[in-house]
Amino acid sequence: MTYRVGIINVTGFAGMEAARLLWNHPQARITSVTGRSLAGRRLGEVLPHLAVYGDMPITAEIEGDVDVVMSALPTAASAEACAPFVRAGVPVIDIAADFRLKDPAAFEQWMGQPHPAPELLPSAVYGLPELNRDAIRGAKLVANPGCYPAAAILALAPAVAAGILGNQIVVDAKSGISGAGRGTGGGYAYSDVNEDVSAYKIANHNHQPEIAQELAALREAPAPKVTFVPHLVPMTRGIHATCYAPLARAVSTAEVLAIYRDFFAGAPFTRVVDSPPHTKYTLGNNMCLVHPAVDERNGMLVAVGVLDNLVKGAAGQAIENMNLMLGLDQTAGLSLAAVYP
Amino acid sequence: MTYRVGIINVTGFAGMEAARLLWNHPQARITSVTGRSLAGRRLGEVLPHLAVYGDMPITAEIEGDVDVVMSALPTAASAEACAPFVRAGVPVIDIAADFRLKDPAAFEQWMGQPHPAPELLPSAVYGLPELNRDAIRGAKLVANPGCYPAAAILALAPAVAAGILGNQIVVDAKSGISGAGRGTGGGYAYSDVNEDVSAYKIANHNHQPEIAQELAALREAPAPKVTFVPHLVPMTRGIHATCYAPLARAVSTAEVLAIYRDFFAGAPFTRVVDSPPHTKYTLGNNMCLVHPAVDERNGMLVAVGVLDNLVKGAAGQAIENMNLMLGLDQTAGLSLAAVYP
Amino acid sequence: MTYRVGIINVTGFAGMEAARLLWNHPQARITSVTGRSLAGRRLGEVLPHLAVYGDMPITAEIEGDVDVVMSALPTAASAEACAPFVRAGVPVIDIAADFRLKDPAAFEQWMGQPHPAPELLPSAVYGLPELNRDAIRGAKLVANPGCYPAAAILALAPAVAAGILGNQIVVDAKSGISGAGRGTGGGYAYSDVNEDVSAYKIANHNHQPEIAQELAALREAPAPKVTFVPHLVPMTRGIHATCYAPLARAVSTAEVLAIYRDFFAGAPFTRVVDSPPHTKYTLGNNMCLVHPAVDERNGMLVAVGVLDNLVKGAAGQAIENMNLMLGLDQTAGLSLAAVYP
Amino acid sequence: MTYRVGIINVTGFAGMEAARLLWNHPQARITSVTGRSLAGRRLGEVLPHLAVYGDMPITAEIEGDVDVVMSALPTAASAEACAPFVRAGVPVIDIAADFRLKDPAAFEQWMGQPHPAPELLPSAVYGLPELNRDAIRGAKLVANPGCYPAAAILALAPAVAAGILGNQIVVDAKSGISGAGRGTGGGYAYSDVNEDVSAYKIANHNHQPEIAQELAALREAPAPKVTFVPHLVPMTRGIHATCYAPLARAVSTAEVLAIYRDFFAGAPFTRVVDSPPHTKYTLGNNMCLVHPAVDERNGMLVAVGVLDNLVKGAAGQAIENMNLMLGLDQTAGLSLAAVYP
Repeated sequence: MTYRVGIINVTGFAGMEAARLLWNHPQARITSVTGRSLAGRRLGEVLPHLAVYGDMPITAEIEGDVDVVMSALPTAASAEACAPFVRAGVPVIDIAADFRLKDPAAFEQWMGQPHPAPELLPSAVYGLPELNRDAIRGAKLVANPGCYPAAAILALAPAVAAGILGNQIVVDAKSGISGAGRGTGGGYAYSDVNEDVSAYKIANHNHQPEIAQELAALREAPAPKVTFVPHLVPMTRGIHATCYAPLARAVSTAEVLAIYRDFFAGAPFTRVVDSPPHTKYTLGNNMCLVHPAVDERNGMLVAVGVLDNLVKGAAGQAIENMNLMLGLDQTAGLSLAAVYP
Repeated sequence: MTYRVGIINVTGFAGMEAARLLWNHPQARITSVTGRSLAGRRLGEVLPHLAVYGDMPITAEIEGDVDVVMSALPTAASAEACAPFVRAGVPVIDIAADFRLKDPAAFEQWMGQPHPAPELLPSAVYGLPELNRDAIRGAKLVANPGCYPAAAILALAPAVAAGILGNQIVVDAKSGISGAGRGTGGGYAYSDVNEDVSAYKIANHNHQPEIAQELAALREAPAPKVTFVPHLVPMTRGIHATCYAPLARAVSTAEVLAIYRDFFAGAPFTRVVDSPPHTKYTLGNNMCLVHPAVDERNGMLVAVGVLDNLVKGAAGQAIENMNLMLGLDQTAGLSLAAVYP
Repeated sequence: MTYRVGIINVTGFAGMEAARLLWNHPQARITSVTGRSLAGRRLGEVLPHLAVYGDMPITAEIEGDVDVVMSALPTAASAEACAPFVRAGVPVIDIAADFRLKDPAAFEQWMGQPHPAPELLPSAVYGLPELNRDAIRGAKLVANPGCYPAAAILALAPAVAAGILGNQIVVDAKSGISGAGRGTGGGYAYSDVNEDVSAYKIANHNHQPEIAQELAALREAPAPKVTFVPHLVPMTRGIHATCYAPLARAVSTAEVLAIYRDFFAGAPFTRVVDSPPHTKYTLGNNMCLVHPAVDERNGMLVAVGVLDNLVKGAAGQAIENMNLMLGLDQTAGLSLAAVYP
Repeated sequence: MTYRVGIINVTGFAGMEAARLLWNHPQARITSVTGRSLAGRRLGEVLPHLAVYGDMPITAEIEGDVDVVMSALPTAASAEACAPFVRAGVPVIDIAADFRLKDPAAFEQWMGQPHPAPELLPSAVYGLPELNRDAIRGAKLVANPGCYPAAAILALAPAVAAGILGNQIVVDAKSGISGAGRGTGGGYAYSDVNEDVSAYKIANHNHQPEIAQELAALREAPAPKVTFVPHLVPMTRGIHATCYAPLARAVSTAEVLAIYRDFFAGAPFTRVVDSPPHTKYTLGNNMCLVHPAVDERNGMLVAVGVLDNLVKGAAGQAIENMNLMLGLDQTAGLSLAAVYP
């Protein structure tokens, strides 16, 4: 059987990346795609890198029956578009931020608007299989993780779960510009962004509560305090999360590596590596590389997580979740080498 | 049946790209890879983006039986490594420049050394399926085109074959830095190459006779005179060949487009486009996009060809040739969307 | 004496570059700057790299008396803003394209609108000192060259003037993205432009008639036929013009180099070099490097010109013209090493 | 009077940047430059961006009398080259790391070799004028700060000196590739480094003790514990140090800004800014921009410092120190706008 997939907002970066990856999925194929300003056009024409899709129409709404839906709309619009499918029992993966925070008040605080469908929040599962694989398998609504949280949580989860960390966690994240989305406004013009690094939304980015929520779920109280600072670096894809946390007790690098390897033993897409990983080792594929190191001089854990923000940080993760929800092999369509150099 | 592929020099950029692409080939798999300084190591370890290959050993020579061999060694070393397989009847695709020029004297003139296996030259077929598909199907030794010639020849071939061009052709080509190979010497350090464009080997690059030879074969005498100037631009992958030739007679853009579309009617990997193509529309896949335009003011054809120098300009082309030589579907393993953005 | 300079539209790339360079001019200083949407703000605040200017106000119109005006407004708006100063006898350098084409009909054809001040065209001098130094010295209105024409004309002028070229000239130019101006629309977002090369306005860019006009003035009829194709490459600054023209007679590279060195003997900012120049050798300074080479096999001249599009291709050239118009040393404020790496 | 400056190792990135900046110094000029493999060549020839220097010879040793010396040799070699000048009473600025750590045992521990001239260490002054201006004025030997420490110390010094920080400090620094020096080995080839971020020498870089030493000098015991992790990002120039430290008491952002503004009140090259600064706002000039922010949720100070690693992080700082040592205006030759875009 080939499952029919609908992509809501295929013309954003996450949506088009889902289309790129699904083209080679052995058991799923896209049958309907939507866009907003580009509805009425042809997918292979408006996105020439997707020419393999040829004349597939971009429509305003999902057309025909689909077996699963992915939404890559902006915040709030996404929940509105997903809700009818959830209510109709169609499995939905929301790539937007709408169903990640379990508390609708937190959503309103961080997003600046009330949640459009709070009644669906209790059933939403946070879609990071390294933490929640079984729950995802049984879910009808999966909240795909944010790109920064995916890298940061995977870098920190084993240590948090093992109880070896103190309370004050710093996540310093560096992202390629595609993380800012496809719009050209707001300072992402080439001439401004090239040869530049800058921080933004210091300790004030809506991925902070997402990271904190998921780490808190991994251990008994107290909840970790997370200081999160994102940075833009001049590349297109890639996230490098460098995480710092004081160690609650003395542990060796070897012990930490063992903790991490145990934690990710069954995870096909997170690999623990012995030396600092390069974001480029994951360009275009669904891997997250994690490297924990101990600063023995200062009793500090330094844990690095790298991934491609559009794959493991968005569309690849969504397909991995789709595979689990549909009962397929977790890696179907996602066993890929990275694009290097 | 799954064909067994041997890659000679998997650790160069072309070799590692062949490994990346073959991982998802439905009817072929790599069973042996060689390296030079890295022999004895593991593929997934020394090239982390190929971690899917895990512990496959890199050996000094191809080990075990293989059904087809690709060589990505440097000039001359490649012919020496290929020759025993050719003599043994194993199909060989040489990604190096060794079997492209049909005249061994031309090889010696341009490469500065005698050809190591001139007796094999008569049987070598130039591996550009858009020109030579049938010959490739029957070949045991295929000379994979150079990255610049692939783009330039595909941009010019329909017009040359149609007899609409005068004699003086200019090929101005822009390449990403990966075209210079994996070595770090010679001025390819990031700090030197970033924010820089420069020409090199002006009218003196060994891809010039390759382009001239293949264009000459497309029409009656006189042979076109080709001025070829390559440039390095600050990106990793991609070639943009901008070709200029005076028109032998007045033709409209519409007529030229029709000539091009006819010429490439059966070609799965060359597409004629209506507006100037971006190299990035082909990043990571095997497409060549061709755009002919007429400068009516001056009676000049401007024909653009773009491709990924490591795919249609090297490893993807090699797999396409392999498919033809083995009787497989020409597109097996190569039906891919490009990586964008 | 310190001359007072007014900059119209200091907030565009050319305007802000003029401000950067004039900061260190020994005999001129900016006393008034205008902006459009940013009028009312402070220069050092809205453009942090110009913090040396501190609280200098950005105003809607030039305020106070100035001894010379530079305008970096868009086409047509610039002529309108310059005209009152020209009429009042204030020396004006127009960095826009408004006064470059001597024929108002050509302006209308290429710009798509009538010329706003055609009566001023006869007095305008084309501001390339390598061709017109004496005329610039006596001018009240100087049309600063376009960035592409500056590179192309300097690369070709000696050969055209020497009568060694045939008629069919190709100019293949590569530009950094800042040449597209400060706006973020139209495809110049980082994620689209990075790792990409593309041609645009093939044989249809309004710098073509500018190049043709100036080359035609260098020799007896017939006027050269110029095919001009601009390309965008992923860097911020720099233009590399590669020019091709059939030789009218056999000349050696040595003879060509001598012709070029004679031509530029008195020019402080154009240097003839023996090997292909890198755009980066001119980053941030006012140099143009020219390299002529002969493709003897095909009887073709290949002439390369490189410069920084915002300096010798815009603001630096404007200051050089200002120096000449005010009777200052031609190099005042412009004797700078390039920024490398 | 014009002071005569000798540059030892002008062919490295720091040395050539010193030459670039000194070209426009009103009271100093270079009279002798040394190189190693390039001795015997001409400066303007081997470094085309320094063509303003024309035929100045690169020699093996400093020739003729000089009034001040800057050394940009690698570690240990630099101390050996500086020592004779120090002993002869010629003012010396060492851009290398040789005289920064006051404890020769620490030098040996971090550099892996004994200090070549430990007897000079007591007289060396750490050359960060924001901390040590008066001492620099009277010094004969100045240890120019490392590029990372310059950014990190300036970002943290006011808060450390004010006693508002706890003990556990994290410095997460992002650097352009030129920080790795001019050699091309070790993974800095364009194709490897482009589109990539990676950490290196995690908590093990020799700039860590330098940062710790200088911060410790700013307050009573206990000395801060500094975890330092450097990263390479795909740009040529620029350092972005993001520093994290728990607050020892509750302070508002306004109070922190006031502390910072007071601290840097007399410093011409460090400016406290209200929003996250971009490295590119300092490209090519001697500014350091500092931005402190309070993460009130977690009681954490986040302090950002950005600068150009080759200017305020190396050659510009050296000239600033030279100015102080020679009794010149601190800003002589260094009042520059940044190069933007």
